[in-house]
Amino acid sequence: MDILSVLQQKSKAVDAALPLFLPKREGSGWLRDYRDMLWDYNLRGGKRLRPALCMLSCEAWWGKQEQAVPTAVALELLQNFFLIHDDIEDESEQRRGKPCLHRLWGVPYAINAGDATFVKVWETLMANRGVLGDEKALEIYEEFVALCNKTTEGQMREMYWVREKKWDITEKDYFDMAGEKAGYYTVVAPLRLGAICAGRSGLKSNFDSWGMKWGIAFQIQDDLLNAVGGKKYGKEIGGDIYEGKRTLLLIHLMEHCSYKEKKEILKIMNKPRQKKTAAEVKKVLSLMKKCGSVEYARRTAKELAEEAKIGFEKSFSDARQGAAKESLRALIDYVIERDV
Amino acid sequence: MDILSVLQQKSKAVDAALPLFLPKREGSGWLRDYRDMLWDYNLRGGKRLRPALCMLSCEAWWGKQEQAVPTAVALELLQNFFLIHDDIEDESEQRRGKPCLHRLWGVPYAINAGDATFVKVWETLMANRGVLGDEKALEIYEEFVALCNKTTEGQMREMYWVREKKWDITEKDYFDMAGEKAGYYTVVAPLRLGAICAGRSGLKSNFDSWGMKWGIAFQIQDDLLNAVGGKKYGKEIGGDIYEGKRTLLLIHLMEHCSYKEKKEILKIMNKPRQKKTAAEVKKVLSLMKKCGSVEYARRTAKELAEEAKIGFEKSFSDARQGAAKESLRALIDYVIERDV
Repeated sequence: MDILSVLQQKSKAVDAALPLFLPKREGSGWLRDYRDMLWDYNLRGGKRLRPALCMLSCEAWWGKQEQAVPTAVALELLQNFFLIHDDIEDESEQRRGKPCLHRLWGVPYAINAGDATFVKVWETLMANRGVLGDEKALEIYEEFVALCNKTTEGQMREMYWVREKKWDITEKDYFDMAGEKAGYYTVVAPLRLGAICAGRSGLKSNFDSWGMKWGIAFQIQDDLLNAVGGKKYGKEIGGDIYEGKRTLLLIHLMEHCSYKEKKEILKIMNKPRQKKTAAEVKKVLSLMKKCGSVEYARRTAKELAEEAKIGFEKSFSDARQGAAKESLRALIDYVIERDV
Repeated sequence: MDILSVLQQKSKAVDAALPLFLPKREGSGWLRDYRDMLWDYNLRGGKRLRPALCMLSCEAWWGKQEQAVPTAVALELLQNFFLIHDDIEDESEQRRGKPCLHRLWGVPYAINAGDATFVKVWETLMANRGVLGDEKALEIYEEFVALCNKTTEGQMREMYWVREKKWDITEKDYFDMAGEKAGYYTVVAPLRLGAICAGRSGLKSNFDSWGMKWGIAFQIQDDLLNAVGGKKYGKEIGGDIYEGKRTLLLIHLMEHCSYKEKKEILKIMNKPRQKKTAAEVKKVLSLMKKCGSVEYARRTAKELAEEAKIGFEKSFSDARQGAAKESLRALIDYVIERDV
C-alpha cells in the first residue's frame, strides 16, 4: 500500500475541485490581492489529510468519491482558514515552507482573508444540495457547526494557558485540548462526514472514541516534528517553544526534569516570543531529549495509534473491502510516521 | 411614530432570544473568558438596526415577528463578529462607549472570539429549520453567504486604499465600497431576509436598488457622526482620520481644498495611526467644516434617503398597512438623523 500516492491522488481531486469554489485569480488592485490571498495556502499544498479521510470514509461505505468532494473541499478550506488565523494568534513565522500569510500581507489583510475563506467554507457546503440533497446538506452543515465550536474552544483553551502562564497542566488537560482542537477536527469529523456523504449517517458515532485517539496521535506527531524536525517539515523547528505551547513533550519534561531545570525552563517559556533566544530554545529542546520526553511522546503516539487500529477494525468490519478501507488503515500508521 | 421605542422593542426581542443561541456565562478559567467574550458586544447594546429591519420587513409582509427571530439574532451576531475583527484591522480604540474587545483581551483572543461568534451565526441560522422549514432555512443561509462575501470584499477594498496610500478615489469608488460594505449588509439584506421569513421570497429583489441608497445614507451618517460627534456617540471623534479612512467627507474635502491644504492633508492622512497628533486630526476636521464637506455629506445623505423613500413606497405599496410599515418608513429618516 503506497499511502503517499493515495494522499497525492486525493489531493489532486481537491485541486481539481477548488476552482469551482474559489474565484479565479484575475482582475487587478484590491480584487486581485483578495483573490490571491484566498488561494495562497491552497496553492502551497499541504498533506490534505482531512479531505482524504473524508473521501476514503465515503468510499469505504460504498459511496463514490464525487459524493464527498464538496465536503472534502470545505474541510480543506476550513483548515486554511484556521491556519491563517492561528498563525496570527500564535505569531508564527512559517507555514508550509513559506512565510505565513500575515507576514506577507500584514495582520489586517490576513484577518479579513481568513474570514473570507471561512465564508467560502459555508458557500462550498451548499454544493451538497445538488450532490446529496437538502437533508444531507443540512446534516453536514450541522457537523461543521459542531466541529467549528470545538475547534475555537480548543484554541481558546490553549491560548489561555499561555496568556495566564498556567503550568499546572496535566496530561489529561493536554489530551482534552488536543482532542478538541485536533482529534475531533482532524480525524473524527472527516470520518463522520464521509459516512454521511455515503448515506450511512447511522454509523457516524461509531468512530468517535477511537478516532479521537488517532487524532491525538496526529497532534503528538505534530508536536514531535516541531521539536525534532523532518525532511520536508515546513515550519520552524522549536516554533512551539517560541510560541509557549504546552505540548505533550513539554508536560513530560516539566514532570521529569530537576527542580533547577524546571525553574530555568519556566523562565524561558514565560518570556514573550521576541525575548526568547535561539540558544534558550535549543536548551529546552535538548532537555526534552535528555529527559526522555521525545521518546515518551513517540511511545504515546504509537500506543494511541495501536488502540485506534483496534477500534477501526471493529467499526469498519462491515465496510467495503478494498483500496479505501486499506488506505484508511494505512493512514493510522502514517500519521505517526510522517515527516511533514 | 416614536421610532426609538420601536427600535428598543425590537432590541428587547433580540435580548430575549440571545440566551437560546449563546452559552450561559458560567464556568471558570478559559471557558468563562470564552463565554464572556462571546457575550460582550451583545451586552453593550447598540442600535440593533439590522435585526429591527429584518423583523419589521417580515411583519410588513404579513409575517409574525417570531418567524424572523433566529434570522434577526444571526444578523446581530454577524454584526458583532464583523465589529470585533474590523476593530482589530482598523486599530480602533472604542466600540459602543467602551474599549474594543482586542484592547481588553489582546489581539489573539479577540480574533478567536470573532471566529467563535461567526460560528454562532451559522449555528443560529439552523434554528430556522424548526421555525420555517428546511427549504427556507437554506434560502436564508444562501443570503448570508452572499452578504458575507460582499462584506469581506468591501472591507478588503477599503483596507487596500489605506495600505496602498490610494488617493485617486472618486465618489463612485466610495459609493461602491459603502454599498458593498454597508449598503447591502445593513439595509438590503435585512429587508430581503424579512420578506423570506414571511414567505414572500419572490419580493426580495425589489428592495435592492433603493435599499442600497438607504444603506449608503446610513454609512455617510456614520462618517458624519465620526467627524462631528453625537450626544451618545460611542466611538472616538475623528477615529476615521486616525484610521486613514476614505470617507465621503474626506473625498469631498480633497476635491475642494487648496493645493497647499491638500498637501498638508495627505501628509497627515498617510501617517500611521500612532504618528498622528490630536492637533493634526483636529486640523483635518476643521478643514472639513471650512470647505463645506460636512454640509455636502449631510445633503448627500438626505438626498439618498429621499430617493430611498420613493423606492420604499413603491416596493411596499402592497405591504400590510400598520405599525411595521410605518416604522420602516420612519427608519429611513432615522438613519440620517440619529446621533448614535
